[in-house]
Amino acid sequence: MTFSSYLASRRDLIEKTLESLITQKEGLPHSTLFEAARYSLLGKAKRLRPLLALVTAEAFGAHIEDCLKPVCALELLHTYSLIHDDLPCMDDDDMRRGRPTSHKVFGEAVAVLSGDYLLTYAFEVIATCQNITAEQKVELIRVLSQKSGAEGMVGGQLIDILNEGKQIDWNTLEFIHRYKTAALISASLEFGAILASASKEDREKLQSIGNAAGISFQIVDDILDVTSSEKELGKPVFSDEANAKCTAVTLLGIEKAQQTAQALMLSVKNDCKDLSISSTAIEEMLQKLLDRNF
Amino acid sequence: MTFSSYLASRRDLIEKTLESLITQKEGLPHSTLFEAARYSLLGKAKRLRPLLALVTAEAFGAHIEDCLKPVCALELLHTYSLIHDDLPCMDDDDMRRGRPTSHKVFGEAVAVLSGDYLLTYAFEVIATCQNITAEQKVELIRVLSQKSGAEGMVGGQLIDILNEGKQIDWNTLEFIHRYKTAALISASLEFGAILASASKEDREKLQSIGNAAGISFQIVDDILDVTSSEKELGKPVFSDEANAKCTAVTLLGIEKAQQTAQALMLSVKNDCKDLSISSTAIEEMLQKLLDRNF
Repeated sequence: MTFSSYLASRRDLIEKTLESLITQKEGLPHSTLFEAARYSLLGKAKRLRPLLALVTAEAFGAHIEDCLKPVCALELLHTYSLIHDDLPCMDDDDMRRGRPTSHKVFGEAVAVLSGDYLLTYAFEVIATCQNITAEQKVELIRVLSQKSGAEGMVGGQLIDILNEGKQIDWNTLEFIHRYKTAALISASLEFGAILASASKEDREKLQSIGNAAGISFQIVDDILDVTSSEKELGKPVFSDEANAKCTAVTLLGIEKAQQTAQALMLSVKNDCKDLSISSTAIEEMLQKLLDRNF
Repeated sequence: MTFSSYLASRRDLIEKTLESLITQKEGLPHSTLFEAARYSLLGKAKRLRPLLALVTAEAFGAHIEDCLKPVCALELLHTYSLIHDDLPCMDDDDMRRGRPTSHKVFGEAVAVLSGDYLLTYAFEVIATCQNITAEQKVELIRVLSQKSGAEGMVGGQLIDILNEGKQIDWNTLEFIHRYKTAALISASLEFGAILASASKEDREKLQSIGNAAGISFQIVDDILDVTSSEKELGKPVFSDEANAKCTAVTLLGIEKAQQTAQALMLSVKNDCKDLSISSTAIEEMLQKLLDRNF
């Protein structure tokens, strides 16, 4: 099996698990909540975070069946963040994953609530999944809450919003990227380690690999915003410019931005060699992440 | 010690714990997030949910020190729900807990994000607290996520929002009250039982007591909206009428609404007698809850 077909098979399992986690419940007074959550969750998406977690867990010897629900919690959480980030009072985006954003289809109130539901449900899914210990569940929940809260994703989004239209320097932007994006990428690798009961040393290395890969990923995102078409990206291009945002491209220029992303990935690959297991799958996955080639 | 002074001492401990859970961090790029969260969390408030949990936990023999942080997670979660419910796209309220709502002070984006942070942080606080087992943490997180998600608070808020300005019947309103309010009141009593490792039988009884008390509480809320002053309530009166909302008062009339609340409380008191421990403190607490007398 090639790595691409391996990834495709794993993504298929993730899709099926996501589909099963939120089923459409017709005729209930709150069926709109499930409809809106499914609309945002089940659209065209890369499933990057659960894939990273699953590939890592398998590389460290975990059973795939025990991992599927917990890794999907990462996608539930990521999806909530997209819904809330797209709101008119935040980035005010009309398109996401190739179709109109949640608030455009369901209205703002339902969009806010479906995001709240997906966030809450991410923790429920971990708390109620089978075949992992209570200690593992608590560790997953600790990592997920810390990396997606004030010292992670939500903190990063707040700094991003407060600095909209302002001139910031590269250090501040790198801080935003680390909090807003890299924290959850890093959490995904840690999820894999926790699910496979990997050693403390490996977990710490994966954390730092995830941080570097996440920042690199976000720089590539800034580059794609000015080099892609809307069709390729599934959302409007030049949106950063339209929102008067400082990005890696506006601050460093495309060439320097590309060099920075590549240097980070070189350090990621070196760090992968220090893991206690064969890291080929994790390295290939991270490379594909950067190339957006999956 | 009278019951009132006992409650006052517990509320003081809860206030101190809440104050310590989110400290103001000056000079950080995301200090506004902590400022906004503290603004909403530390205002004048009854601390009903953590008090219910704490009184129940102590009645079942738990050590108060082990319970303080986990019970405060209920208040973090309740506060997030108030911030999001007050947003212009939801109930569009200008006043809460006696002062301007979060979005009036910090803007909508910060209000949404501070709510997201408080919700996420509620789970982190449980996952990282001391002196309770991993199994207890997982149970607390399961109950909190289930009672505040689609089959609880968020589901109830969605039905409420979708029916605004529409004529609904008492059954639908009772469904909204059960989901939107009673679920988290019930979760609070269950928190006490979990923290004290109470029996399955007691937990089930507490669940049903919480549901009945929660619906009764919400009916009283509807009554107070038309019988109180803004100063007493800490938020505008006649807001339900202004929002064209069906309430227990508009559907049943004040007298019938009062009778319904009292009948529910009578069943609560009877059910309390069936608990395996002396239920005086829990009963007194629930009575005060209804009387808003604390």
